[in-house]
Amino acid sequence: MNKEELGYRKYRMEGGDGPCSYRQNSNYQKLSLDSAKELMNELIDQNLDLRNSYNVCPLDTFRIADFGCSVGPNTFIAIENIIEAVRNKHKSMNLESKIPEFQVFFNDHVDNDFNCLFKNLPSNRQYSAAGVPGSFHRRLFPRSTLHFAHCSTSLQWLSKVPEEVTDKNSPAWNEGRIHYGGAAKEVKEAYFIQYGKDLDSFLSARAQELVPGGLMALIIMGFPEEAQLSESILGETFKTLGSCLQDMATEGIIEEETVDSFNLPFYYPSASELETLVEANGLFEMERTEELVTPIKRQKPDVRAAALHLRAVLGGLIKEHFGEGIVDGLLKRHFEKFVQNPIVSDQNYIKEAHYFLFLKRKMDLPTPWAGQS
Amino acid sequence: MNKEELGYRKYRMEGGDGPCSYRQNSNYQKLSLDSAKELMNELIDQNLDLRNSYNVCPLDTFRIADFGCSVGPNTFIAIENIIEAVRNKHKSMNLESKIPEFQVFFNDHVDNDFNCLFKNLPSNRQYSAAGVPGSFHRRLFPRSTLHFAHCSTSLQWLSKVPEEVTDKNSPAWNEGRIHYGGAAKEVKEAYFIQYGKDLDSFLSARAQELVPGGLMALIIMGFPEEAQLSESILGETFKTLGSCLQDMATEGIIEEETVDSFNLPFYYPSASELETLVEANGLFEMERTEELVTPIKRQKPDVRAAALHLRAVLGGLIKEHFGEGIVDGLLKRHFEKFVQNPIVSDQNYIKEAHYFLFLKRKMDLPTPWAGQS
Repeated sequence: MNKEELGYRKYRMEGGDGPCSYRQNSNYQKLSLDSAKELMNELIDQNLDLRNSYNVCPLDTFRIADFGCSVGPNTFIAIENIIEAVRNKHKSMNLESKIPEFQVFFNDHVDNDFNCLFKNLPSNRQYSAAGVPGSFHRRLFPRSTLHFAHCSTSLQWLSKVPEEVTDKNSPAWNEGRIHYGGAAKEVKEAYFIQYGKDLDSFLSARAQELVPGGLMALIIMGFPEEAQLSESILGETFKTLGSCLQDMATEGIIEEETVDSFNLPFYYPSASELETLVEANGLFEMERTEELVTPIKRQKPDVRAAALHLRAVLGGLIKEHFGEGIVDGLLKRHFEKFVQNPIVSDQNYIKEAHYFLFLKRKMDLPTPWAGQS
Repeated sequence: MNKEELGYRKYRMEGGDGPCSYRQNSNYQKLSLDSAKELMNELIDQNLDLRNSYNVCPLDTFRIADFGCSVGPNTFIAIENIIEAVRNKHKSMNLESKIPEFQVFFNDHVDNDFNCLFKNLPSNRQYSAAGVPGSFHRRLFPRSTLHFAHCSTSLQWLSKVPEEVTDKNSPAWNEGRIHYGGAAKEVKEAYFIQYGKDLDSFLSARAQELVPGGLMALIIMGFPEEAQLSESILGETFKTLGSCLQDMATEGIIEEETVDSFNLPFYYPSASELETLVEANGLFEMERTEELVTPIKRQKPDVRAAALHLRAVLGGLIKEHFGEGIVDGLLKRHFEKFVQNPIVSDQNYIKEAHYFLFLKRKMDLPTPWAGQS
């Protein structure tokens, strides 16, 4: 197993159906999907060109891929929304008899629990289903074979923690912290550079896989312009987690060095950063960027639900870095410390943002992408 | 979970990588693949029409599906053989620059261990890979999207045990046996009727999924014309297994009734039965039928390897019917009884046959298949 594959292993959601699984603790992500549904319908209606968009093949089959699908159920909801919008467009153009068959590809890392995903596939689904294992930072499909790509609340995961932040000789060394919130500006810059590389790989791979004019909807966890991550609930969550790890090191439960080398592989871009990165990639037209208004925006944090969610998302990372034993103890400490944080009773705390991006693959790809495998 | 899904659950190979797994005990199936390789190359060379066969889409992508793939490694070998033959054909026609990209779909029941399959995917593969869960007796792909279908040593599995053989009031009631070898002719007839229905469902689904002129290679475990299954090593194996179950019932370890209701869902057709069934289905041209000459034909049985193979294939069935506890004990008894059988030292015992069928999907499907989803 090479280093990169090892990296992928860490970055998976908690599998199965149990009370700690991602499947049972992904309602947070579902709220973004619900908020995006109407937008999706509107933008597919505006941008799906039933005559020209599918110039690779007479359109008998409409192929959709969800990148970073996890084990469900959110991925199934997203797919249903897309299919419904494509059907609606056909109906509105009096092309109901031409509605294609749908083939749907569910992608995630090779360590995703695909057995669980497949068992959860809706039994009344109106599409052919397939699972595609592998990192979405690379090509996963043959050239020009997808008509719609979707990726929801997955792109905040970096393909790796930027090396500088664990390098004692770098100005970006992130001593005593596990994330860039509240750290020196060099730390955040290192994270941003890695995010830029990863998003560029993602967009370049998708541009080759999508047909010319093919559509892509991204729901991206980001952060409001000008706000400080360290003053947000997310920043506080990570800061508390870091301090619990420090406590455990002080008590001799884990090694100080293991804590120093632990950094969370997440980056939360602003809307303008996203626009800059999509523009720099150059392979897509940006049809729309919107910040989704999710119910989370108006709620006080639910600390218990957040703790379970944190476990589902971070459990694998923590196990991989510190070993099996500490997950329960660490998250218990985190919960006990975090409920006392004044931020949890503040309805107006700063929240992360969910950006909805709707992109169209350019009709002609510039060199060197044209024809490249 | 409905009854049919329950049926599928029983019919899976032992997952994972352990010493009892199908993955570690499928060398028997590999021998057929090796024997078929040359034939495959020859028949793809003869039948792959690079101008007309792919009239659904300009051929940028060549789509291959392996039905009943299990967890590897045999499925990967089969796919490599097919891709190599398609490449060879391009080279021999001086069309090397037109070699398409390959997209490969690995199909098996939803209870197959796809996580294991995905982890075993060759890292140097020259194709895009996807897993497709579901019974191959139904449609799994959109219309006219596959160029090549493959299915090796899987079609002997019936979708269910024919009901009559467990019905005390039927002339096909299979009292005191777990298979049709040595049973009344009505038992074998009931098995054959079920096999015919299942093969027809398989062929009809594939005919819709393949492009007109699309190719299909089947390696079918069958039995020589006129030979008696009961006089073969396979028949003796099942007979011994049945008698061990009877012993365990006599000793009160399992219920007599549970033994009576246990029948193996396998049928081994003759070459002429296969020809009759493919002809009756009517959706494919039969380009070739051959009996493969595998090294097994010239070997004395290796009882220890056969025991592990038996466990990998039947372990799931036995667990499902009798519960977790009895598998070890039953297979130990079987081994001890079977090594004493004179057939295991007889180099000329009757062996099962492996038939290689090479089919071409007819250019026009008759009603009611044309356009049916």
